[in-house]
Amino acid sequence: MKINGVPYRSVWVDQTDQRTVCIFDQTRLPFALEILRLSSSEQVAHAIVTMQVRGAPLIGAVAAYGLALALSADASDEAMEREASMLAATRPTAINLRWAIDRMLQKLRPVRPEDRVATAYSEAGLICDEDVAQNEAIGRHGLELIRAIKNRKQERERINILTHCNAGWIATVDWGTALAPIYMAHDEGLDVHVWVDETRPRNQGAALTAWELGSHGVSHTVIVDNAGGHLMQHGQVDIVIVGTDRVTANGDVANKIGTYLKALAARDNGLPFWVALPSTTIDWRVQNGLTEIPIEERSPLEVTTVTGRTAAGHLETVRITPDHSTAANPAFDVTPARLVTGLITERGCCDASGPGLQSLFPATTRL
Amino acid sequence: MKINGVPYRSVWVDQTDQRTVCIFDQTRLPFALEILRLSSSEQVAHAIVTMQVRGAPLIGAVAAYGLALALSADASDEAMEREASMLAATRPTAINLRWAIDRMLQKLRPVRPEDRVATAYSEAGLICDEDVAQNEAIGRHGLELIRAIKNRKQERERINILTHCNAGWIATVDWGTALAPIYMAHDEGLDVHVWVDETRPRNQGAALTAWELGSHGVSHTVIVDNAGGHLMQHGQVDIVIVGTDRVTANGDVANKIGTYLKALAARDNGLPFWVALPSTTIDWRVQNGLTEIPIEERSPLEVTTVTGRTAAGHLETVRITPDHSTAANPAFDVTPARLVTGLITERGCCDASGPGLQSLFPATTRL
Repeated sequence: MKINGVPYRSVWVDQTDQRTVCIFDQTRLPFALEILRLSSSEQVAHAIVTMQVRGAPLIGAVAAYGLALALSADASDEAMEREASMLAATRPTAINLRWAIDRMLQKLRPVRPEDRVATAYSEAGLICDEDVAQNEAIGRHGLELIRAIKNRKQERERINILTHCNAGWIATVDWGTALAPIYMAHDEGLDVHVWVDETRPRNQGAALTAWELGSHGVSHTVIVDNAGGHLMQHGQVDIVIVGTDRVTANGDVANKIGTYLKALAARDNGLPFWVALPSTTIDWRVQNGLTEIPIEERSPLEVTTVTGRTAAGHLETVRITPDHSTAANPAFDVTPARLVTGLITERGCCDASGPGLQSLFPATTRL
Repeated sequence: MKINGVPYRSVWVDQTDQRTVCIFDQTRLPFALEILRLSSSEQVAHAIVTMQVRGAPLIGAVAAYGLALALSADASDEAMEREASMLAATRPTAINLRWAIDRMLQKLRPVRPEDRVATAYSEAGLICDEDVAQNEAIGRHGLELIRAIKNRKQERERINILTHCNAGWIATVDWGTALAPIYMAHDEGLDVHVWVDETRPRNQGAALTAWELGSHGVSHTVIVDNAGGHLMQHGQVDIVIVGTDRVTANGDVANKIGTYLKALAARDNGLPFWVALPSTTIDWRVQNGLTEIPIEERSPLEVTTVTGRTAAGHLETVRITPDHSTAANPAFDVTPARLVTGLITERGCCDASGPGLQSLFPATTRL
């Protein structure tokens, strides 16, 4: 998508030094657009752990390049397996990370060490290109849902979409998942407006989704995570669309903490709650999201402090809790399939259920 | 309750200058304990509007003193009615404010102007004393609910209570509403632990509830507003207790934005969701909370910025959203009575329903 009219992807290989992998430092947004140049698997791992790069699909793509960087240093079987394990362990909840590493290993294991670097960069590039194509397809399928809402509305009524966290283009290689249909609706002239949950504790909504939408010219309003239910009660939301870090084979959805609360409110108000995902986010081995998906517990400092820009223009971190108060910080929750209206995938929309997923992804046709 | 072992109320008349009204500046907590001395109704109104003083019961008590201060300047009928209207308009959602002003006017209208100041201070003092007594009674009734949970638990299992916003002693004159049962349970040696919702956008949970509980020695953990549903799904919450700014005659509950989402999660997980209130919070003239209670819309700056303490030790406000993104800031939501397990009042517990409320408060016995 575009930033000030210039098209970008959220990860790319440097044109002059064809080994260096470039990303935006997402911990600096929305206040600074800084490009990080990664030249080792350790740097990639650090960028993932510190969430300089985040978003389930993007983490997978960047980790794939991380393995390519590791092989540039040592292309032996032993190093490849060790670095793959190291990269796969950087975040526990998103399944795309493990999917990407597994795909890389399957491709690379039969290849002679001296050919592995070229193969790895090529395969990581393919993962990126496929991600973009999948998200574009998700956008087309989700756009149909938005058009259907438009058709039920009066001429000049806007379409109100609520989203949680950031499942936009900077959470993927391009287009995004939850935001892809919104960009397409906006681009074809539909009057869409997005309620952006700020998404504490890391404020990916307030910082990233608002920035993305604003940069592309999409009308949006930031709200605290507490406000969505009230807006739904008062007819201010037409549809909820979120992304996900892992979907189980029966349609349970792990996503950023707080997603479950919005799904409950959507159900209580009879509103559609959709989840957008590339099929690489499906974990076919897992049935029960609540008991089987590991939920990352992150630092209490993410809760007890907030980082933003001072009036003087520099970034500052402020403490918001008493010094002696502790905090807990589960980063994801699981929305049971029963609360999900449906899933938007690259192959179309389906029920959030085993049969629904299998209708689009029979076992022999899965990625 | 106590701060560092010293007992306080949250509003009092200065001992030496018997007209000045003292409160804590709650916008400075938890980082500084500063006492504000109010000597005019304008200062009282400013303190309420800027939320230096907040909490539905406390606002009522402080506004009552505000009228006493107004009468000290001008005790005429005209000034009294004008200043009463001005004070009643400072916040729209909490009903205690209007209740306190109405009670003061009923008491003062028949009184000769030259006797009004003494009567006003006396009546405001009575409002405060009655608030303390009511909250202590709420605490005793709520304590029974906590004891019942204890009796179902294993010997060394802690009792986990989730609360939203601040309905503690600094939201009232003393004891608090939602926190009163918790203080009593703690004081009698029950192993209670409180999950404290931070309560964006103003962080009354992270700043005030955490500070209160910590100052009294009650075990607690701050969580983001997004996390409560996840904790409930995983058996980490035994009961939810919140306060309220207005309860309708049929049991709908207006409270800080986000309360509704926690009520939905409690119901989805089969957990008790209780609301603690003095009967002054009941608006007997209103039936439908969703359509009849005015919801205050506050400044977008409360959403787009966060104030806290820097590492260097001074208070700083930081912006967390892009410069061109707007924000919406509804301050309260309404939890329909159907989601409320029951109400804890000074006369005991009852169903959140018309018959439930009338069983405790027949029309002839209401305050």
